[in-house]
Amino acid sequence: MANAPHPLDIATQLEPVGTGRFRGRTLDDYWNMVGQLGGLTNAQLIRAVLDDPRCKGAPVAQTVNFCGAMTQGEFEIECKLARSGKTTQHWSLSLTQGENVIATGSVVTASRQPTWSKQFAEAPSAPPPETLAPFEFEGFMAWPKRIDFRFVEGAFELHEPAAKVVKSPRSLVWLQHQPARAVDFVSLATLIDVFFLRIAQIRGYIVPMGTVTLTSYFHATEQELRAYGSAYLLGVADARLCRDSWGDQTCELWAPDGRLLASGTQLAWYRE
Amino acid sequence: MANAPHPLDIATQLEPVGTGRFRGRTLDDYWNMVGQLGGLTNAQLIRAVLDDPRCKGAPVAQTVNFCGAMTQGEFEIECKLARSGKTTQHWSLSLTQGENVIATGSVVTASRQPTWSKQFAEAPSAPPPETLAPFEFEGFMAWPKRIDFRFVEGAFELHEPAAKVVKSPRSLVWLQHQPARAVDFVSLATLIDVFFLRIAQIRGYIVPMGTVTLTSYFHATEQELRAYGSAYLLGVADARLCRDSWGDQTCELWAPDGRLLASGTQLAWYRE
Repeated sequence: MANAPHPLDIATQLEPVGTGRFRGRTLDDYWNMVGQLGGLTNAQLIRAVLDDPRCKGAPVAQTVNFCGAMTQGEFEIECKLARSGKTTQHWSLSLTQGENVIATGSVVTASRQPTWSKQFAEAPSAPPPETLAPFEFEGFMAWPKRIDFRFVEGAFELHEPAAKVVKSPRSLVWLQHQPARAVDFVSLATLIDVFFLRIAQIRGYIVPMGTVTLTSYFHATEQELRAYGSAYLLGVADARLCRDSWGDQTCELWAPDGRLLASGTQLAWYRE
Repeated sequence: MANAPHPLDIATQLEPVGTGRFRGRTLDDYWNMVGQLGGLTNAQLIRAVLDDPRCKGAPVAQTVNFCGAMTQGEFEIECKLARSGKTTQHWSLSLTQGENVIATGSVVTASRQPTWSKQFAEAPSAPPPETLAPFEFEGFMAWPKRIDFRFVEGAFELHEPAAKVVKSPRSLVWLQHQPARAVDFVSLATLIDVFFLRIAQIRGYIVPMGTVTLTSYFHATEQELRAYGSAYLLGVADARLCRDSWGDQTCELWAPDGRLLASGTQLAWYRE
C-alpha cells in the first residue's frame, strides 16, 4: 500500500495516442460543483507537455481557458508546438471530450540560465503548519478533501446569504496534498487553483460561478522543487475587485524557506 | 489635419481576408529594440477579435505569447472561435508572417451583467499629471516617443552597468498616447505593456531581454471606457523577482476617478 499511486498521479496519468496527443480520464476525487477542479485541468495540461518527447526545458508559464465543464470519463489533450527556439518553446493546447472543447491554453517551456537574480517580494509571515488546525470543509464538493489546508488567515466559511457578509478577499494558508505528495510542476499547477473563488470567500456563500481563465508562472527548476520533498507550501490569494459578474484573483505559492515558487492570476465569472 | 488618424489606429488597422483572418502592417512609430512593442501586438490581436463579426460582448481577458520577433511589413492574424456560449466566447489567436509564428494567444469576450460589486484594491495616490514633467526618453527605440509618460515614482533611467545599480522594481506613472487618444480596449491593450522591462528598470541598463508572455484583464465596458475621453491613466508596475534569466511583472491601469480599468502580468526573459 505504501507504493499505491497518489490520486493526483492517477488523475494526471496520460496515455500517448499520437504525436502531441494524449488520452486521460477524470477521477471523482477531484470533482467540483460542476466539472473537475480547474487546477487539475491545469495539471493535466502541464503533464501532457512534460510527457511530450519534443519538450525541452521546464515550464515557466501557463495559461488555461476554461471553455466548458468537464464530464466524467475520458478526455483528449492536443499539444501543438507553435514555435521551438534555442531557450524557449511555445505550446498551444486544447483539451476536448468528443466534439466539446473543454479547455484551451498555452504553455511556455524554457531553460533557466544562471544570471543576476533577486527576489523583491517577501513571503508573508505565518506560524508553522503543524501548529495550525486542519481545515474541515463543509461543502459537498470532493476536491477539497484531497487538499490539506492549514489556514493562517481568511479561512473559507459559509454564512447565510441573509447575513450580507463582506469579508476581505485575502487568504493565507499552508497547503499540501492529502495524502502528502512531492512538490513538482504537476503539484504547483494544481495548488495554484485550490483557493476558493474569491467571490465565495468574500460573501461566504456559494453562488453560480467559475474560473474562466487562469495564468500560472513557475519560478524554479524541477531539481529545485524536488529539494522541498513534500513540504507544505504557503499560499496567498487576494483579489482586486468583483465587478458586474467578473472578479479577479492573484495568488502566490511560497516554499517554507521564503522562496517564491509560483505566482498566478485568474478571472472568474459569477452571478449574484 | 485635425482628423488625421492616430498612429495607434494606423498600426492596428486590419483588413479582413477571410473568416477569422485579418491582414495588417507594422508601423515604424512603435518599433522596439527588436521587433515591435509587445503592447502593440496585444492591441492588434484584440482589434482582430473586435473586428470579427462573430464577436459578441467585450474583451475580459487576453493572453499573448511572444514566439518570435516581428519583422517590418505585413502580418496575418487568425482568430479561431474555440467555444461560444451564452455569456462567454473563447478565441484562440495566432499572428504570423509567412511561415513564422510571431505570437499565439487567447482572448475571452463576454457580457457584463450588473451584480453585487466591490473594488478592494485602491488606486495609488499621485499628483495630477499636468503638474508633472513629461519624460524625455534617452534610448534609441521609437515606441516610447508615442507615449506621454508622467512619472510619479520609478522613472526609467539609464546608468553605467559598472555602477551596479539595484533599484526598486516599482514604477508609478501617468500614461497617455502621444498624441492623446481615446481610452478604449485597443488603448488599454497597448498601455498595459509600456512599462519598461523590470530588469532594465532595476539595473538601469539595457540587457538582452524580451517579454515572453503577457496576460491582461479588462474590468470595464466599452461605454464605461468611453466616458474617460482621452484622460491620462495611472499605471503601476512592479515585480516579484528576477531569477535565473526569468523575471515577472505585475501592472495596473487606473482611471483618474480611482477605478481599476485593467490589470496584467507578464514574464520576461533576460540575460545578464
